[in-house]
Amino acid sequence: MASTFVYKADLVRGRQWAEVFRREAPQIDFRLWPDIGDPARVHYLAAWEPPNDLADRFPQLKLLFSSGAGVDQFDLFALPRELPVVRMIEPGITRGMVEYVTHAVLDLHRDMPAYRRAQQRGAWCPLPVRTAAERRVGVLGLGSLGQAVLTQLAAFGFDCAGWSRSRRVVDGVRVLAGTDELGEFLARSDILVCLLPLTDETRGFLNAALLQRLPRGAALVHVGRGPQLIAADLLSALDAGQLTEAVLDVTDPEPLPPAHALWSHPHVRITPHIASMTQPVSAARAVIDNLRRFERGEPLVGLVDRQRGY
Amino acid sequence: MASTFVYKADLVRGRQWAEVFRREAPQIDFRLWPDIGDPARVHYLAAWEPPNDLADRFPQLKLLFSSGAGVDQFDLFALPRELPVVRMIEPGITRGMVEYVTHAVLDLHRDMPAYRRAQQRGAWCPLPVRTAAERRVGVLGLGSLGQAVLTQLAAFGFDCAGWSRSRRVVDGVRVLAGTDELGEFLARSDILVCLLPLTDETRGFLNAALLQRLPRGAALVHVGRGPQLIAADLLSALDAGQLTEAVLDVTDPEPLPPAHALWSHPHVRITPHIASMTQPVSAARAVIDNLRRFERGEPLVGLVDRQRGY
Repeated sequence: MASTFVYKADLVRGRQWAEVFRREAPQIDFRLWPDIGDPARVHYLAAWEPPNDLADRFPQLKLLFSSGAGVDQFDLFALPRELPVVRMIEPGITRGMVEYVTHAVLDLHRDMPAYRRAQQRGAWCPLPVRTAAERRVGVLGLGSLGQAVLTQLAAFGFDCAGWSRSRRVVDGVRVLAGTDELGEFLARSDILVCLLPLTDETRGFLNAALLQRLPRGAALVHVGRGPQLIAADLLSALDAGQLTEAVLDVTDPEPLPPAHALWSHPHVRITPHIASMTQPVSAARAVIDNLRRFERGEPLVGLVDRQRGY
Repeated sequence: MASTFVYKADLVRGRQWAEVFRREAPQIDFRLWPDIGDPARVHYLAAWEPPNDLADRFPQLKLLFSSGAGVDQFDLFALPRELPVVRMIEPGITRGMVEYVTHAVLDLHRDMPAYRRAQQRGAWCPLPVRTAAERRVGVLGLGSLGQAVLTQLAAFGFDCAGWSRSRRVVDGVRVLAGTDELGEFLARSDILVCLLPLTDETRGFLNAALLQRLPRGAALVHVGRGPQLIAADLLSALDAGQLTEAVLDVTDPEPLPPAHALWSHPHVRITPHIASMTQPVSAARAVIDNLRRFERGEPLVGLVDRQRGY
């Protein structure tokens, strides 16, 4: 009797998952929500937002996959206690994030915001070109995305450092860890990139006190989660000259309301949470790979630690 | 009796050259124009614009260096016939160009022009994310800059090809050559990057007929020289929807006059010829390296072929 895998997220991408499962894991009964078949046979669920009555609806559920990189949209403490929850780690998300952050850091490094403003005035104003080695970039968060971003930025020659709560190792990049070393990390970040997961500890992390510890004239690239940033504190820091520019791919709320002050600030650039999206084909393959690990009793890639929250 | 090296270009950078020469080639009498010392001892000149009476003023001149990547600012046929002319090939120029073109291609690839326009309306409008592998990038010109740019873009996973007048080899990148293969190259360039040198053959090369051979909806990144592009043809192609976006670092004339139509076109982004600048320290080192090659009778790096024009 075949195991059923239910997909409950964007349908267009779901059809691409179905195609990959049909070819590469035909023994699995892959179904698109709400066509779930016999609920008692549903062993696996991939969802952006799981149903509220998860345990009652799928009594035989063995694994819950998030269809995105984060699990902050899940209420982890409301889920069945023994159910393993798996984040999405797949090369499509990583490549998208590396593209977005590389673009944002180069945009700031090469003074593109100033050139776009000069263009509005029809003004030809060359600025001195600084080398990447003279630009200190700091990445908050050293999961698979933070590590990939740092590796690419270091290849461009930026003076890179990374920070995470607990000590991590990233080849060729200086790494700082924990509250004790956060100040030193911030003080050397001309461009600060936030790639932290959203947890109770990181909610409101990017606030006035933190921004004040950056070098004067620093810039922010925020690709974590909207509620990590206190928008009013960012606007104050920009208006006070403590920060010069901000690039935000995430906001609170999303979508950002049309009248929000962030939209119209001349030194803020906003994109609508598009830095990185699960690519259906590589995501489906990453999930199939994890199902095989599960069957063999091997460790899952992206298994969530519920206490930690990611 | 020491050889004199005269530097005739931007003075701020010249002082940094002087410092490098003092440390690394103290046997050379390095001087900043107009303090040339005894003209009969001037064996080497590095200039953006050489003096008109070059041969009369420096009868013992052995080498002329351009202080920039191009030599199109020199009147090659007015220079003494036997005088070797050397272009600037140095890692600082290359790194700057790779940064600029990577930024421009990622800006187009990730729909940043559309997101900037949406921000002006306070509109949260996510667009589908395409992978780099689905984006065909073509680089015109396969000198040291074109090759370095292609290597970086290929590393991001873009579907890359290069074109040059005569056949070149670039590791891991498909290369087309000559007039016969230009059409095939253009027809597969969703993003066209121009890195050609300015010669009689490339003046006006980016014209209506060429832009028409690109896929409909293509984009242009122009980092060659201003007179290669017919601005009116670009504006027509944008207005007709044949092209969607253009990024121009070079214009004709430079500076671009404030009232020029390019400044205000919503699908054109202009920077004031800053894609890449000679970095004084690495440039001075590259010149010293060439002086040593010259003394040893070895081939010079960047020696200009006057017939070819670069």
